[in-house]
Amino acid sequence: MARWEPNAQERLVRAALELFTEQGYDTTTVNEIADRAGLTKTTFFRHFRDKREVLFAGQDTHTRLLADAIDAIDAIDAADGPVTPLEAVRAALDALTATFTDDRRDVGTRLRPVIAGHTELQERAALKRAKLTEAVTDALHRRGVPEPTASLAAELGIRAFYDAFDQWADPASEQTLTELTRRTLDELRAALAALD
Amino acid sequence: MARWEPNAQERLVRAALELFTEQGYDTTTVNEIADRAGLTKTTFFRHFRDKREVLFAGQDTHTRLLADAIDAIDAIDAADGPVTPLEAVRAALDALTATFTDDRRDVGTRLRPVIAGHTELQERAALKRAKLTEAVTDALHRRGVPEPTASLAAELGIRAFYDAFDQWADPASEQTLTELTRRTLDELRAALAALD
Repeated sequence: MARWEPNAQERLVRAALELFTEQGYDTTTVNEIADRAGLTKTTFFRHFRDKREVLFAGQDTHTRLLADAIDAIDAIDAADGPVTPLEAVRAALDALTATFTDDRRDVGTRLRPVIAGHTELQERAALKRAKLTEAVTDALHRRGVPEPTASLAAELGIRAFYDAFDQWADPASEQTLTELTRRTLDELRAALAALD
Repeated sequence: MARWEPNAQERLVRAALELFTEQGYDTTTVNEIADRAGLTKTTFFRHFRDKREVLFAGQDTHTRLLADAIDAIDAIDAADGPVTPLEAVRAALDALTATFTDDRRDVGTRLRPVIAGHTELQERAALKRAKLTEAVTDALHRRGVPEPTASLAAELGIRAFYDAFDQWADPASEQTLTELTRRTLDELRAALAALD
């Protein structure tokens, strides 16, 4: 058995979001999600522990992408002079946002109202955000960036990503998530100058 | 009935923290807390909805203190020239931390391990932190500070308060929470200059 199902995770995410949107998160079962995706329940559980986790599918990949992008900077560093903490964060965000291609925008659009409607999902979403921030902070520490600079740079970068994601998830939006995140980070950086 | 009990809220907080520390949060009942404080269960429920809320007693007072301090700046503003967002945040933090007199340091010391031991309490603590940040952000908006400057200033200030609180709650600490918070905010502000 255990056939390889092409793109199973993405199909399950899309099927779950369709069902959550149509009939609500609470009433949707794992069986229904697997059926809608044309997959078995066994395949579902190979990818996700429960239906809640479908909504946070990317957590491990995303933390790894952020950390790997920062860890990979060393080579560039030697050639082009020191990379600042915020430049490292920018590189990490570019790596992360490159995976949110525009054909996935509708996933973002559907995700937001489902999470907004459930305290349990908001808490889980807050944990994911904290994990992404931690991954960036830890990677900056490995580059020798001290506290509190490392965590401040990480918080600013992850905030830029989430603010930009909200804009990207708007069906009327035409920019890529990479463009939106870069612009938002620039705006946040500029706003710091107005603090005092 | 309903006699006025002098300092009932503070007595309940101290009694609860003693019991949580001695015998654990989960096993302690509201009856035991009221008994230890020398008060009735009825008095307990006049002050708190349940035993969890004892640990977050200050939320309403603290959000009000922060907001009122910022709202009160207008008069000063006219006399001494424009007050920057971070100066407004400093004033708010001074007002808040002034209420944490050093005879209350042991409350902080006991509070931390209780909250750290329970996911449910950590989530409640995260909500309180979000509410404090929101109160400062809203007060800055009322002064005409635009986004994202207002929320960035609020996040920085509330982070300074929490970082400083951790230091203050250390029994070996000798500085006031006001001094620690001011210094921490200065350090965070200075660290922003190292972002790029």
